[in-house]
Formats: sequence, structure tokens, C-alpha cells
Amino acid sequence: MARGSSDGLGIGLIGTGYMGKCHALAWNGVAPVFGDVARPRLAVLCDATDDLARRHAQAFGFDRATSDWRALVEDPDVDVVSITTPNALHAEMAIHALRCGKHVWCEKPMAPALADAERMAAAARASGRVAVLGYNYIQNPVVRLMKALIDEGRLGPVNHVRIEMDEDFMADPEAPFSLKSGASSGYGALDDFGVHGFSLIQTLLGPVARACGHMAKPYPDRPTGAGSRRPVETADIASALIELESGASGIVTFNRSAWGRKGRIFVQVFGSKGTLVFDQERFNEVQLFLAEGASETQGFRTILAGPVHAPYGQFIPAPGHSLGFNDLKVIECRELIARIQGKPSLSVDFEAGLRIEHTVHAVAASARQGTWVQVAPAGA
Amino acid sequence: MARGSSDGLGIGLIGTGYMGKCHALAWNGVAPVFGDVARPRLAVLCDATDDLARRHAQAFGFDRATSDWRALVEDPDVDVVSITTPNALHAEMAIHALRCGKHVWCEKPMAPALADAERMAAAARASGRVAVLGYNYIQNPVVRLMKALIDEGRLGPVNHVRIEMDEDFMADPEAPFSLKSGASSGYGALDDFGVHGFSLIQTLLGPVARACGHMAKPYPDRPTGAGSRRPVETADIASALIELESGASGIVTFNRSAWGRKGRIFVQVFGSKGTLVFDQERFNEVQLFLAEGASETQGFRTILAGPVHAPYGQFIPAPGHSLGFNDLKVIECRELIARIQGKPSLSVDFEAGLRIEHTVHAVAASARQGTWVQVAPAGA
Amino acid sequence: MARGSSDGLGIGLIGTGYMGKCHALAWNGVAPVFGDVARPRLAVLCDATDDLARRHAQAFGFDRATSDWRALVEDPDVDVVSITTPNALHAEMAIHALRCGKHVWCEKPMAPALADAERMAAAARASGRVAVLGYNYIQNPVVRLMKALIDEGRLGPVNHVRIEMDEDFMADPEAPFSLKSGASSGYGALDDFGVHGFSLIQTLLGPVARACGHMAKPYPDRPTGAGSRRPVETADIASALIELESGASGIVTFNRSAWGRKGRIFVQVFGSKGTLVFDQERFNEVQLFLAEGASETQGFRTILAGPVHAPYGQFIPAPGHSLGFNDLKVIECRELIARIQGKPSLSVDFEAGLRIEHTVHAVAASARQGTWVQVAPAGA
Amino acid sequence: MARGSSDGLGIGLIGTGYMGKCHALAWNGVAPVFGDVARPRLAVLCDATDDLARRHAQAFGFDRATSDWRALVEDPDVDVVSITTPNALHAEMAIHALRCGKHVWCEKPMAPALADAERMAAAARASGRVAVLGYNYIQNPVVRLMKALIDEGRLGPVNHVRIEMDEDFMADPEAPFSLKSGASSGYGALDDFGVHGFSLIQTLLGPVARACGHMAKPYPDRPTGAGSRRPVETADIASALIELESGASGIVTFNRSAWGRKGRIFVQVFGSKGTLVFDQERFNEVQLFLAEGASETQGFRTILAGPVHAPYGQFIPAPGHSLGFNDLKVIECRELIARIQGKPSLSVDFEAGLRIEHTVHAVAASARQGTWVQVAPAGA
Repeated sequence: MARGSSDGLGIGLIGTGYMGKCHALAWNGVAPVFGDVARPRLAVLCDATDDLARRHAQAFGFDRATSDWRALVEDPDVDVVSITTPNALHAEMAIHALRCGKHVWCEKPMAPALADAERMAAAARASGRVAVLGYNYIQNPVVRLMKALIDEGRLGPVNHVRIEMDEDFMADPEAPFSLKSGASSGYGALDDFGVHGFSLIQTLLGPVARACGHMAKPYPDRPTGAGSRRPVETADIASALIELESGASGIVTFNRSAWGRKGRIFVQVFGSKGTLVFDQERFNEVQLFLAEGASETQGFRTILAGPVHAPYGQFIPAPGHSLGFNDLKVIECRELIARIQGKPSLSVDFEAGLRIEHTVHAVAASARQGTWVQVAPAGA
Repeated sequence: MARGSSDGLGIGLIGTGYMGKCHALAWNGVAPVFGDVARPRLAVLCDATDDLARRHAQAFGFDRATSDWRALVEDPDVDVVSITTPNALHAEMAIHALRCGKHVWCEKPMAPALADAERMAAAARASGRVAVLGYNYIQNPVVRLMKALIDEGRLGPVNHVRIEMDEDFMADPEAPFSLKSGASSGYGALDDFGVHGFSLIQTLLGPVARACGHMAKPYPDRPTGAGSRRPVETADIASALIELESGASGIVTFNRSAWGRKGRIFVQVFGSKGTLVFDQERFNEVQLFLAEGASETQGFRTILAGPVHAPYGQFIPAPGHSLGFNDLKVIECRELIARIQGKPSLSVDFEAGLRIEHTVHAVAASARQGTWVQVAPAGA
Repeated sequence: MARGSSDGLGIGLIGTGYMGKCHALAWNGVAPVFGDVARPRLAVLCDATDDLARRHAQAFGFDRATSDWRALVEDPDVDVVSITTPNALHAEMAIHALRCGKHVWCEKPMAPALADAERMAAAARASGRVAVLGYNYIQNPVVRLMKALIDEGRLGPVNHVRIEMDEDFMADPEAPFSLKSGASSGYGALDDFGVHGFSLIQTLLGPVARACGHMAKPYPDRPTGAGSRRPVETADIASALIELESGASGIVTFNRSAWGRKGRIFVQVFGSKGTLVFDQERFNEVQLFLAEGASETQGFRTILAGPVHAPYGQFIPAPGHSLGFNDLKVIECRELIARIQGKPSLSVDFEAGLRIEHTVHAVAASARQGTWVQVAPAGA
Repeated sequence: MARGSSDGLGIGLIGTGYMGKCHALAWNGVAPVFGDVARPRLAVLCDATDDLARRHAQAFGFDRATSDWRALVEDPDVDVVSITTPNALHAEMAIHALRCGKHVWCEKPMAPALADAERMAAAARASGRVAVLGYNYIQNPVVRLMKALIDEGRLGPVNHVRIEMDEDFMADPEAPFSLKSGASSGYGALDDFGVHGFSLIQTLLGPVARACGHMAKPYPDRPTGAGSRRPVETADIASALIELESGASGIVTFNRSAWGRKGRIFVQVFGSKGTLVFDQERFNEVQLFLAEGASETQGFRTILAGPVHAPYGQFIPAPGHSLGFNDLKVIECRELIARIQGKPSLSVDFEAGLRIEHTVHAVAASARQGTWVQVAPAGA
């Protein structure tokens, strides 16, 4: 029998929560799924304590464990650092990793403070390394199909876009005051998950030029543990009128207190020749209307993801059998490797991510001012 | 054999187009459907020429025909005047009919000019007669169910609303310049059909307090017959951020160049205890999410219209068998008769309609100014 | 002013229940909707008592009222007799009307006893008059679109069909024993509403050649008023494997104890080039898959009914605005008039209806025998 | 830094195709996903040639590679053998592995010949080892929810079930004659994928007692490479009326030439108190109707999979974010490990799998005979 070996990239993973596990699965799965990349060496895992780190390293298949993220970042066995810690820690970790010559795969958003996001982008620019963000929804094969159809002109010039993102984890008015209701967590729905919406717009249609936002608090206060109530400081609902640099108009609206919505990202793209509609809760479907052929048989087509929609076929050779959320991270991982290899890839790098941050802050500013605000160009 | 007789209201109908036929069907159907009202006497029908009027009178079952709308309005046999002519004619006809002591059933919107709408409301106030507008979507039994659930507090206080109205009759960029692209027709999508959206918001949730609008022209010009192109003067897309008097926030967006959408009115109402969703293209369904019971069996319920949703059962005793658009006008007609009889009814009268007109003009003003605009109170 | 007049057909309507009202609405609506037929003279209405008849005649717009159906049938003012009485009365009334030289529009099914259905067909044949049945679902514009697409070969040869019909009016096991549970009412779901399914198959794809059926009683007994329980004699569920004369295979299944289903008629037609899917609970939609074009954009198209799907446009000039159940009867009425006028029309006449009855009885026989049974040719 | 270690089960995987990759991903993912099992040792991978085996071992993370499946099965490092080879090889491999004292995870179906399936079941019985089959659809969290709701009696006694399985990989009549059209491949749709349908019925509702089947060939012949056509020997469509041991009736229908269907498994379960509906193409949804509460708010609830539906939360902590097909295999893997550990688990073992095989052969026999056939009890 021959012994398998691996000359793949050395991986360091910081964080083992929701996204930490997701990165771990991606690093475990990318070689079996794609077959055309060397199996990564899962070198070092960092968690809050040595013991936690050791247990997760065992489960996730990492060779070594540590509670010292700097040690991980500086480890010569590590080529790529996965950063899945709370947002406030991203900047320091990412910048240090880039300075150590590592590639960085950092979860979104970049950082609560715009200045930190700008420093991250500057560090990436200076490093010459690959630095990408975890905007995984753009990796969905049906979203990639949307992009291909738009880029090929199948819709004609796009003149209007709408994105709704709705979840209900803040919908219960009696849910106790938590971190997410405090001003230190950011604006609320807008930066908590609205950034995903902007990643989709930017990837599919290009940057937002100007915006006029509105933020709302469905519940003015929430109970504290002590039997009293505390005023809510963040906006669970945010909406904006937007204009894109392309000239298209649009609206975005984000609601994290939308009862019954669980992972809705409803995207509607209107062009002069057709329309695309995607609902993230129906993950493997996209609706396409083309103003073609006899009108009596025109209608929105429900296209089910299948092997004709790369890279679906790397996961499952049969159409209509459904990818899942975690599979997107495997694709994102494959795109990251491609980018490191200098090949064409689809990802949101720190430069593009900074533009998303600028957009978010422009919406927030416009909501405060009650007027339209221009989005500052990335790097400006 | 006994001879049937009728002591019902005497009806005069002006106009025989889309809405004229719709009113005619309603006046023919209201007694068979409801059974509890005297069969109206279809007295006089008015069309552009005597010949057209005669032919339509025969088909629609009217006793007499005329091409003189004033003669119709002044006819002593006429108790109610149905006005289904182009919008620019509404004011003169409605005001004259009210002054003649007739009840008026006028198609929406009231009038292109706000001043005319205000004169219509004043005439209605002065007349003591019933004057209602053809906002038929509020009559859909599932919309009425929405209203009942909201009014009963099943959703808790409503904190957010979204309405999208989309059709595609202006979606083809090569469709020739027509009336609807000229400034004389109004603002565009906003007043052309967006008024329906506001009728739903106002009926379900109360008046809009302030708005921040945006209008867009997906196609800057359209071909004329002469081989050249003419700049489009109306906005086929209009959107607005809104705040209701109730304190709820929301967005509305209207697009008459939305390829593939045919009669979409997508309504989402979010409250502290649940969510309602309606899509007019699925006319007999409403989606209800209630944050009740075990979480593993929570989900949006697709409620199909049936006899438990009055007045569906007057049309069909079996649930799930579908009402249609024209049936809404029959319900509207029954509500009008109830109102004439001094009974409780659901309709948009001239007062409420004026508030819709004010809302539309506020959105248009805000779009011009790029700021939020307060909606003037009706009658102010 | 000119006085309207009518030289249309003279109508006699027997029955004022669910279907009686539906016929009344159709006779009132057919001229306004279609415009190209003379307005029928609503001559005589027959109900159980003179008083009931008089009241319904007033509401429905009939000139005269009677409680004597023979008088109605023999009335010289009556050209067409609408029969909407309980099934057991159809044969006698229809046969007498045909013998009196009247055209007959009889609700489905023909008669509980096959011999009666055969006598009805023989009477129709002998009369030279038009005799059609109320199989209204075939009149839905989207069903007519299905027929057109199949007839044009857009699906290629059809090789498989499935029809599911489900309602829940018998779903409650504690609903008291009623007429429908007694053997005198027929077989149960099979003839109660399954006949509609066969009308669709026959209209779209031609006659059923052989069948192998199964009937089931979800609840063996039901409570009586007296506090005891009585064995159920009819089958609330019926299913069959079928082969069509065309060679296609298929299944049909009917369930009137299917909780949550209200008016589901789910039709799936598979051909060598595509597939059609219709769900009656989404009345104005049909799904079409064509194996054409690039595979990455293939998908089921949701086609919304509109004016391109005749005769939708006679009701509403705008697409996607929804016809309803009662509108189908207006179309059926128009087809009946066309047939009387000797023009092409779509309807299920007594001959075709008899084939449906034979099919039903073949399914029932096969269920009893546990083997396949050949459907006797109509008229054999 | 601490070094990770693994004392997990030793794994041997035979086959690297569709299902081979799927097993590999499951063995890689089960520890990261569930966290509560020791990370398996990926010991030996077997492929057709040493070179292929070596390459896949590298990508899949296996220590060693071989082209000799007997060597793998007999390897002392191997505790569990994953068998993902063509069906005809299952029996020999599984029986040898069981005799070597290994646990076996074999892809479905068991074997083309019933006698082989019986020998496999006998070998499992004799071995005292765990032997399960790859019926992964039962592992979907929403299918497990269906099972829980049925087992808890939320639907009341189930009286009817329908399963439709449709794909279109054989829908093109001009697709060349291939293995699947030859009699050596089995009956056709019935055993090719219909077995999944029976795995669902058996898991949710218990065994099938008797069946009456029908098989159809939509296309009598297919082109060969040589320019001629060859008669098709298998049935691309199979349907059956069924009765369960529970007394419930039902239908199953399988169609692998159903244009537009990609992975449809449409399951409808009817009980005296409610209905469940699942469509595999909408993988993360289940529809539940309960005859509870006010009738005006009753409707099918679309329940989206989330952490409340174990083990969804092991994959993603947020609801509505979608699992995929490959995740089911990870769950199946976890259930296998639980079973090896002597803990409660959900899987189709060789005994239950044999019952599925008997059901399939009963359907085939009944289709040949045109009569109902009793399903032989497993092991009889």
C-alpha cells in the first residue's frame, strides 16, 4: 500500500464558533470536493484556552493547538490564517498576519470602526498577500449563475435592484437586552448582516454610488435581567434608497426582527430584457424571466442548481439534490486557494470589502441626516 | 307564474372600457351573489357615441343609452353614478353628480391635479351623499382577513410594512412613446398604480405621516412613430421610505417596467407577534406567521380563501376554489350599497382617497427635493 | 335615449343552490363579458317552492318563477334549460327537456346510475339538440393553454399523466354520518368529484382505455346524531393506475378527507419534450418545462394567465389579475352558445360525459375485483 | 502547543465515485460537525487501480491506498467498511467484510438479485456487527421532524400516503441506449431509485403489506452508437397502489424520464388530524397542516429547517440557512457510529433493507401479473 501525503497549504484557524467550525469544514472538505488541490495541512488551531483548543483541534483534524493567536500567526508552518473571532478583533489579527507574510481569510464584516477597516485594506495592499473576506453568499452556484447571466447581458442593462434581508432573531420584544442592542455592537441590522446584501449588489452589479437611509427601532426598550427595561441603542430595521455607479436605482432593506423569516435574502434584479429573483431560503433555486419567445409561454423559470452550474458538480453529480450553506464556504475556500495560486477567482478582497464598509457608513450617515449621502470611494 | 320585480337602486354608468365593463358586471352580479340586496335597475349607460352606448347597453343589460353624460347624471331614474372615464374627467363628473344628489362610485385615482381631488372631496362633504373610489384590492377576502387579524392584535403592534407593486407593461425599452410617457399623464408608476399600494397601507395600517421618495427612468427615451426617439417624461419606477402615523416604518416601491411581473402587489406586514404576507398574483392566498406554539412547528401558513373569509362564501360555498379580480368589484359594489343604506362598510371614500392623493404628491415632492416630506392631512 | 333590447336565447334555470347561482351568474355575465352574443332572456326560474322561486328570480334577474320544473321545460320562451338539481334528478329533467326540443346544460356528473347516463346520451343523440355537462375546469384559460400546447406537440407525445384531486370536507373523523357516507350517494370520492379529473384527462389527452382501481375508507364509521356510530359505506379515497387509448400510462387519486387541501386538482403531464403542471389551488398559473435551449437556464416556467390566453382578455385586459371559479362558468356558457350557433366550441357533451361515467364505473369494478378492467366505449 | 490525536474508528472506503466522495466527506466531516465523536482514522482507500487509489487517498485524507478490496476488508486497522461500488458487487464485499468482523456501511440498494440481498441480511445477522444501508433521505432533519410528528400522533392515525419520485436523466428519447436500458440493470425506475421512496414509507409509516404495480416504457427503443435502434428492456416509469401493514392505503410512482424534475421526492402523508408534505427539491422545508385552532387561520405551514430540528444545529446555529445533500451523509455517518456504540440511532439496517427489496420485487411481480401481490416478510 502507498502512503498518502500532502504538500498543501499550511492552515492556522483562529476561533471555533459558528464560523470557526465552518472554516474547519471547508479546509477538511476542499480537497475531497474539488480533487484538483493539494489537501491542506491543518497546522494550528487557536481557541480561548489550551484545553478548548486541544479538543477542537482533535475534532477538526488540526495537528496542534494553542490559546495564543500570535503564536499561530507567526508559526512558520502556517501559510493561511483563518480569522473567525468577534469583529472587534479582526483588524489586529489580520494586520499582524499580513505583516507576517501570511494570506488572510477573515470573516465579514471587516471591523466595527471604519478606520480599522481602512488600516486592514492598507495592510493588505502593502503585504502583497491574498486577503479576502467571508462573504460566502456570492459563492452559491445560483448566485454565480445570476452573475454570469448579468455579465453576458442576458437581462440587458440592469436598471433596478432590490434586496431584502430578513431574520427573526431579534423579533421577540421580550427577548432580554443583549450585546446586539448596545451601541457598541454597531448600527444594528445594517452592519450586522446588511453587509451581505451589499456584497451581493457589489458583486453582481458594481458599487453603490449614493444612498438615502432610514433606521428604525421596532422596540424602544428591552427587559434587563434585573426586572427593569433598558432603551435599545441599535436599529433592528434599516432601509435605504440607493443609486449604483452603473446608474441603476434600487432599494435595500434589512430587518432582524421579521417574525418567520429565518435566512431570507430576497434579491430582485430588473433589466431591459429580463428579471432575476433569488430567495436565499430557497437556496438551490433562482427565478429567471426572459422577454423572449411567444408571450403565451413566457414566465419565470425556476432553475434548480445542478452540475451545469459550476461548481455544483464537484459536490454532487446529480442536479436538484441541493447544496447547503456550509458548502458555500468550501467554494469560498477553493476560490481563496485559486487566488493564492494567481488564478482567476471570485471573492471579496479587503479592497472590495472596504467599499462595502463605506457603503454601510454612508447609509448610516444619511439616516442620521435625512438626506442622500455619497459613498466615499474605497481607499479614498 | 309570478313575475319578478325590482325596487333596487337606479344605476347610471359612464364609460365602457376596462373599468366600465367591470362596474357593469358588478351591478349585474351583486344581487345574485349576495341575495340580500334588491336587484339594481340598470337605468342608463353613457358611452362616447349613441351607437356605442346602445350596443353596450344591450350587452350590459342597461335600459337606456346616451352619449350625454350630463343627461345621465341628471336623470331622475339614476340614484348612483358609476364613473369609469379617464382620470382627467373624474372631477367634473363626480362633482356634478354629487350636486345633483346622486351617490358616486368613481374609479381611482381621484384626479391628476390635487386641487381637483380637493374639490371632489369638498363636494362629497357638502352633498351628504355617498362618494367612494374604486380601490378594489382592499375588498379581497384575504386582504380583509389581514385587516381583521391586524385589528384584533394578532400580529401585535405593527412596526414595519413593505409594499411592492410591479407590472411589465412599460418594460420593453422599444415600446413606442405613448401617453403614459408624457408628463401630462402624471408622475408615472407612482400615481398610475402606486395609489393602490397606499390604499392598502391606509386601510390596513392607517395614514402615512412622512415619506422620502425616489423616482427613476429605466429608459431615458422611447421611439416615436417617426423613426426618432423622444425623451421620457415620467418615472416608470418610484420608491419611498415611509413612516406611518402609527409610528411604523416602511418602504413602498412601484415598477411598471418589471419584466415578468404582471399584477404583483407584494405586501409584508411585520408586528411584534407575527407577520402577514400577501402576493396579489396569488390572489386567494395569504401567508401568516404567528410566534406561537412549539418552535419546531412554526412556519408561514398558506391560508386559502374560503367561506370562513367573508364574503367569499357568497360567491362559492367550497373553500380553495378561487375568486377573481372581477369578483372584488362585486364586493365593492355591495359595500357601496351598504354604505348608502347607512350600514357598516369597507370602502375608500373621497376623504380617505384625498389622503392617498396627498401621500402621492408628498412622495413626488420628496423625490424632487431629496429630503423627507410631511404628508399634508386630508382636508388641510 | 335609445332603449336596449335583447333577442338572445331564452333561459330556464332549474335549481338555485351552489351551481344554480353559478349558472345564474353566467347567464347574467356572458353578454357583458363577451360582447359578441345577444344578451340572453332570463325567462323562467324554478325552485322548490313558488316563494323561493320568486325570491331567487328577483335576485337572479329572471322574468318569471315557478316550482314546476315541467312547466319550465315546456315553456315556449325557454330555449335552453340549465339543470343544477341533485344528480338523481338529472336524467328525468334532461331527457324531458331534450324531448321538448330544448338545449340542455346539465351539471356533472350525469346520473348515479350508468343506465340513466346512457339514456341521457341516447336522448341527446335523438334530439339533435345541444346537450353539455358542467365540467367547468376544462374552461380555465391555463387549462386551455395546456390543451393547445399538447395539441401543437410542444410536449412531444405524452407518455404519462398524473391527477390528484384533494379536498378536506370529509377529513374530520368525528363529522356526523351524512348523505355522502351512505351507499345511495355513489362510490364516494371517485364519482363525487373524481369525474372532474377524468374530464381533464379526456379533454387534454383522450379517453382512458383500462384501469386498476383501489378504494379506501379512512374512517370505518362515523357518529350518528343518536350517540352511536354507523359504518361508512362510501370510500373517501380512490386511486387508480390507468392506461390511455393513446398508450400513455398514468395514475389518478382522489381524496376527500385530505386535511388542508381545499380545491386541489394537481395535474402533471409528461411528454418526450416537456412537462406541464397545474394546481387548481393556484388557479391562474401553469408550470411549463421545455427541454429547449441552454440547460443552465432551463426550468419550470410559471405562466400567469393573461389576455394572450383566450378568453382571459374578455374578462380583464391586464395579465396576472386573476380569473376566479365563477368566471369558468361564464366561459362554459359562451362555449354552449357557440355550440348552439354551430361554431367550434370546447365542452363535454353527453357523449363525452358518458365515457367519463364508463371510466368511473370501470375503476369501481376493478377496485372490487382487484384486477385491471377495460373501459367500455361510450355508447357501447 | 499540544498535538491532536485520534482514537476514532478505523475506516476503509471502497469506491471513489459519486457515493465514494460522499462517504469520504462524511468521514472527514463527522467529528468537526458533531464534536462528540472521536475523529475517525481514515485508514485505507480502495480504487480500481493503485494510482487512482493513491490520488484519491491523498485528496480524501486516507493514510493508505490499494486496488485490492480484500486487502482493505481484511486490514486490522479497518473497523468499518464503506462500500460504494456498483450494486452487483455489494453482496460479495459486504458479506466478506462482515465475516472479517467489520461493521459495514453499504450503499443502497442491497443487490440486484433478491437472493444476494437475503444472503447479505443473513451474514449481518450471523456477524453481530452493524450493517446499514445508505438510505440518506431519512436523515434529513425535516424528514426526521415528519417522523417525530407522526410518532407523537400529531397527525392522528395516518390513513393515506403518496410518494412521487421524479428525475429526468432518462427523459430524452434520443439519449443512446445505455446500461440503464438493459435488463441486466434491473427493472428500471422501480429499483434504480424507487427504493428511496420505500425507505421513506417504511421509516415513517412501517412496512408495505401488499401492492399492485404497473411499469411503463415511455420510449420503446433508443439509438445505439451504430445508427440503429435497440428495444429498451427496462421501465423508466413505475407506479403502484399499496396497502401498508398499518392499514393505510397509498400510491407510489417513480419516473426517471420526467422532464424538468431533478431530484423530486414528493411525499404526502394524510392523517385524521393533519397532513405533512415534503418536496426533496425544497430540501429544507416541510409543509404541515394541523386541523387545529380557528379555521380562518388554518393553512399549510412552511417549516424551515433550523436548530430546533436536530441535528441541524450541529451544522449551522442559524435557522433557515440550508443543509445540503452531502450533509445527510454526515448525519447518516453519525447514526452509524451511534449504532456501533450501542446507542439509539436511525438507520436502515440490512434487515429493514431486505424488506425494501422484497417490496420492490412484489411490485415488479404484481406489474407482470396484473394483480395485487403480498410483500413477503423480511427474512421469510
